[in-house]
Amino acid sequence: MTSDLHKTQMRKKIITLLTDFGTKDGYVGAVKGVIKRINPQAEIVDVTHDIDSYDVLGAAFALNNFYKYFPKETIHLAVVDPGVGSVREPILIRTKDFFFIGPDNGIFSFIYQREDITDIIIISNKKYFLAEPSSTFHARDIFAPVTAYLSLGIKTDEFGSPAKECMKFILPQPQSEGKSLKGEIIHIDHFGNLITNIPADLLDKKKNVEIRVGKRRIKGISRSYFEIKETCSERSESKRLGALIGSSDFLELAVNQGSAQAFLKAKVGDRIRIDFE
Amino acid sequence: MTSDLHKTQMRKKIITLLTDFGTKDGYVGAVKGVIKRINPQAEIVDVTHDIDSYDVLGAAFALNNFYKYFPKETIHLAVVDPGVGSVREPILIRTKDFFFIGPDNGIFSFIYQREDITDIIIISNKKYFLAEPSSTFHARDIFAPVTAYLSLGIKTDEFGSPAKECMKFILPQPQSEGKSLKGEIIHIDHFGNLITNIPADLLDKKKNVEIRVGKRRIKGISRSYFEIKETCSERSESKRLGALIGSSDFLELAVNQGSAQAFLKAKVGDRIRIDFE
Amino acid sequence: MTSDLHKTQMRKKIITLLTDFGTKDGYVGAVKGVIKRINPQAEIVDVTHDIDSYDVLGAAFALNNFYKYFPKETIHLAVVDPGVGSVREPILIRTKDFFFIGPDNGIFSFIYQREDITDIIIISNKKYFLAEPSSTFHARDIFAPVTAYLSLGIKTDEFGSPAKECMKFILPQPQSEGKSLKGEIIHIDHFGNLITNIPADLLDKKKNVEIRVGKRRIKGISRSYFEIKETCSERSESKRLGALIGSSDFLELAVNQGSAQAFLKAKVGDRIRIDFE
Repeated sequence: MTSDLHKTQMRKKIITLLTDFGTKDGYVGAVKGVIKRINPQAEIVDVTHDIDSYDVLGAAFALNNFYKYFPKETIHLAVVDPGVGSVREPILIRTKDFFFIGPDNGIFSFIYQREDITDIIIISNKKYFLAEPSSTFHARDIFAPVTAYLSLGIKTDEFGSPAKECMKFILPQPQSEGKSLKGEIIHIDHFGNLITNIPADLLDKKKNVEIRVGKRRIKGISRSYFEIKETCSERSESKRLGALIGSSDFLELAVNQGSAQAFLKAKVGDRIRIDFE
Repeated sequence: MTSDLHKTQMRKKIITLLTDFGTKDGYVGAVKGVIKRINPQAEIVDVTHDIDSYDVLGAAFALNNFYKYFPKETIHLAVVDPGVGSVREPILIRTKDFFFIGPDNGIFSFIYQREDITDIIIISNKKYFLAEPSSTFHARDIFAPVTAYLSLGIKTDEFGSPAKECMKFILPQPQSEGKSLKGEIIHIDHFGNLITNIPADLLDKKKNVEIRVGKRRIKGISRSYFEIKETCSERSESKRLGALIGSSDFLELAVNQGSAQAFLKAKVGDRIRIDFE
Repeated sequence: MTSDLHKTQMRKKIITLLTDFGTKDGYVGAVKGVIKRINPQAEIVDVTHDIDSYDVLGAAFALNNFYKYFPKETIHLAVVDPGVGSVREPILIRTKDFFFIGPDNGIFSFIYQREDITDIIIISNKKYFLAEPSSTFHARDIFAPVTAYLSLGIKTDEFGSPAKECMKFILPQPQSEGKSLKGEIIHIDHFGNLITNIPADLLDKKKNVEIRVGKRRIKGISRSYFEIKETCSERSESKRLGALIGSSDFLELAVNQGSAQAFLKAKVGDRIRIDFE
């Protein structure tokens, strides 16, 4: 590193971490060590290391659930990176309020869709990498040091060349057909709640909603998990299954104090249909 | 928020987190973000996000294992909340040394039993909530901002109205019968150790103890997990099973370098009996 | 504690934590509380609490993956301690750059092998323990307070008596036979990658490598996980299995976006053989 870095004022900036590394091998430990060695003032906040292995879409979904609650200038480092060492590029995205660093593989799809993007930089300046970076562990050798130098106040355009766009998933969109909406399950959370691609605003003011998933029907939308047992279908076996607007602002299927995923044996991609009166 | 908050001196206070959220969905990330945005000086300490889903008693037990070791004035935020959005109230408890915030569903049973309670407040002042709180995610929308404002020095009675008591579990009590004690398993830990409701002081100075669990008998109480193989019953199949006073100060059944839970196929609620000479 | 401690300047030192405790019982919370109560300025960094129960070698391997990336003077607390309460000693190791604290059971084998050891201290000074330490939870009662006092600047020789060496595993060494190398699997990581005991430097400049594991053969060494599908054996069923130099600088068997462990039903100790031309 050149000496101008040492003149940069140390800043106590928040860096959040999201990975699919688990913690038991010390890989996350190495990432944290690299960051703290470069910027001892950085404040590292663990979000998760339990994303399912290689589940880039699950990572994108989780990121969307938390990034906007953090203080401005927070740096979000998100690494679920099945293509490490291949042609996918490491990128840095600057939005009005935040920085995002990770592989350009769709992990920032929701960010790209929802935020004002100020800059997209393809990270390439080896000056900010560990010496002799491996081709198997970019989180430690490239992303961690770049994140740490960014937290020290290095300007975004120092890290590489600007790009016009980043990779994004084409997320399945709900289909409207007369008085029906067709959607699908896009995420299953820790509690087994089934999160669909139907945004809350498509359901506003709709009355007498009936939801079909597999052979089951759910009547009405509950206000909370607890209310499911009171508002849902009267057919006995379905009594525990209900629907509500979840905290991500999507329609969600849930079982009160249980797992809708286990109850329905559901998986990501399963179809649902909503009929209105 | 009114401007008087901004005049409150920022304080570097410790906030511990205990939830059953897992981490993979970003829900815990959102809670942390809300806290850091309101009080960037707050120091968040993860205790656990791996409480079994909806296991309020398990959360109460875990809380009891760690709260008292933290510095005075630590704020313990504990959210295992199957009744979110129902009539259960959000509460704030002030004890001589600590603050506790969470749902009023029994999660603070041990605290209520063991600590000098200074105040119990039913949290209701929307001024300290996120705007338009959801009915599915109070941890993010109510508990996190209240915790953060409390860490900024807002007085407890600002958050709502005082209450006389909070919900508590009626924990199963050991039964004494002549030279016998009857108890049960109240918690199974990560190692498969079976923690009973027999407190250490009931066993003090007792000699020639024999413990029965299912069809098995354990003779004597070992001093450590390692000693189990030396002190326990001589009947070959039981050789690995022993009993000791665990770190929570309850009688515990354990297998040296193994899982007593797996060995006995035990579950919470299983009965044990202790005979003295 | 004597008053001279209070005169010691509080220092913001990094303490990393590695355990097999899981988090759900609050045991890790207790360790963190003890540390923060003694040194509120200490910065605790979670590395992992998910080491397999009692897996001292797995802990040693994980520690080796991260310790050296941290800033100088970092204190690494590592507790996987099946012998707690037995004759194994608590130790403190000082190397040129770091401190290590934990049970003397081989957990520091790689450190001992790779670092310049300045001091080894058998921890025995009860002045720095919690009052009445248990014989089941030394992490809370001995290791945590010793770590915290060390972070306050107490000198290493205050904690006990010097020792000449510490316990270390005799790690299986690769065997060379003519144009062959025999090795074995020493660790399986979170992704199911199989890490062998063949260090990268034994393979430098070797050409036309063929690796045998069970009945399968792998031709050549890939540069990244992503490249495995392009460089590995052409026999269809083995197509997904490849070999590369992993981030720990050992030869590793892997499946691109899958688990080599599940694919091969492999376990630690399984043999591999490498033939060169």
